[in-house]
Amino acid sequence: MRNFNEDNITQAVLDRLSGCSNSRTRRISEALVRHLHAFIKEIEPTEAEWAVAIDFLTKTGQMCSDTRQEFILLSDTLGASMLVDAINHRFDGESTQTTVLGPFYVEEARDFPLGANISSESGDEPLIVEGSVKDSRGNPISGALIETWHADNRGFYDVQRDTGKSALDMRARFHADETGRFWYRSIVPAAYPIPNDGPVGKMLDAQGRHPYRPAHVHFKLSAPGFETIVTHVFLDGDHYLDSDVVFGVKDALIKKLGKIDGHTSPGGQEATPGTSLLEYVFVLPDKR
Amino acid sequence: MRNFNEDNITQAVLDRLSGCSNSRTRRISEALVRHLHAFIKEIEPTEAEWAVAIDFLTKTGQMCSDTRQEFILLSDTLGASMLVDAINHRFDGESTQTTVLGPFYVEEARDFPLGANISSESGDEPLIVEGSVKDSRGNPISGALIETWHADNRGFYDVQRDTGKSALDMRARFHADETGRFWYRSIVPAAYPIPNDGPVGKMLDAQGRHPYRPAHVHFKLSAPGFETIVTHVFLDGDHYLDSDVVFGVKDALIKKLGKIDGHTSPGGQEATPGTSLLEYVFVLPDKR
Repeated sequence: MRNFNEDNITQAVLDRLSGCSNSRTRRISEALVRHLHAFIKEIEPTEAEWAVAIDFLTKTGQMCSDTRQEFILLSDTLGASMLVDAINHRFDGESTQTTVLGPFYVEEARDFPLGANISSESGDEPLIVEGSVKDSRGNPISGALIETWHADNRGFYDVQRDTGKSALDMRARFHADETGRFWYRSIVPAAYPIPNDGPVGKMLDAQGRHPYRPAHVHFKLSAPGFETIVTHVFLDGDHYLDSDVVFGVKDALIKKLGKIDGHTSPGGQEATPGTSLLEYVFVLPDKR
Repeated sequence: MRNFNEDNITQAVLDRLSGCSNSRTRRISEALVRHLHAFIKEIEPTEAEWAVAIDFLTKTGQMCSDTRQEFILLSDTLGASMLVDAINHRFDGESTQTTVLGPFYVEEARDFPLGANISSESGDEPLIVEGSVKDSRGNPISGALIETWHADNRGFYDVQRDTGKSALDMRARFHADETGRFWYRSIVPAAYPIPNDGPVGKMLDAQGRHPYRPAHVHFKLSAPGFETIVTHVFLDGDHYLDSDVVFGVKDALIKKLGKIDGHTSPGGQEATPGTSLLEYVFVLPDKR
């Protein structure tokens, strides 16, 4: 129980976990120790490099605030978030594919009536969103909860503004109507760099990577009896679709923006001719 | 470059590192991605568990301050610090063995003259420390810098007091005399729990582990032409020698406290009979 060296310390730490009463906690702790030690043994960090690692993690935690989650950015940019997502969504091919939640989700978004304009930025390129929520047999899911959020046309989310959470914008909760449909008005979002003035931005720089995500609208869809789906719809043609910094793009989630011909949208809303239209059908898997 | 799943995302992230111009950064980044993804694939975290991991890391960073380094505690308690130490100190058997720096090292400690009392706590059990610093051929290292720090008899370091760094105590820098010797007065330190009111304390609880370290005095020894040695001397007989929470104990670093017989120490200092004495000979390896 003393004199630990490179050959015996990993087992010594694993032995120390023998008093852990929760089997899941024990399994996670053991795996963490084994993989962390294997990483260290492979790279053989100098003490100065290990100090840099400690400092990086410290600064990443200290960058986090009510409106900034730097560790989610780290998980996203290392592909960890998409891997966790893939492991947790091994659904059949019928369901809408999932992608990362991202760091800008806000639980306390406001409820809006269907058809509402959720953007305060009237001068930007307007967008009509029309979606429907179905089960895997094609039946509408009446009353499904739709949470949606997106960036503005310069690529910033509401919570990145000086007003933080005090002025939520381009972010809303809706309930689908009896036919599973929902619709709202907003503005066309832009591609954007993830917040890169912190440790994760420095890491991307050091790795020779750009910080951009292709333009997209976030959706979180839930209803009793169904698995919740967290996903985006990406705008077709975006420059960054093949190099999303968080590895979140799937072909099935890319949609070409339509243009409204006449004075009403396909869903029957009043519209100015030429307004951009984003349509998507979401399919929720049955509760497992 | 899209449609990432459990089978292809690890390679996709590795491919994204191909633009990294610094080969060491690239190697570390690649190893991090491989081991992190292997950890995730092994434990298959739920999304709720991954959110707990993100929150744990965030709180660990936010617990850090000028006088508290929670990520070093995490590294220490997972055995990572001792592994990094072992990798970086593959010296011959002649040199003093090394152990963790720990989270309580303070760079800006004060210089004291040899023989000084470095503790303000006069009511505690007094201690005389007498050491010498040699090279691996047995020659004294004249003028070697000795940095030393330890806890009080309740197990707290100076920086854990309300005064923080404004009142450094039981912490000093000395220079060895021409014969490589140094000596000072202080108090006998106690075993103690590492700070366990933060995320690392919660982790230890969840893992069924106690947070204690056996009583010890820290030393950092350096001199031109020699490798720096970071180590402790542990007090023999301590209850926690076989279960140090940071895996830092080595037999060669355990020393039995002596008791001074007469009115002078072995090194010739005035002393009250019965005063505790800690003696240790430190051997620095030649610069590699």
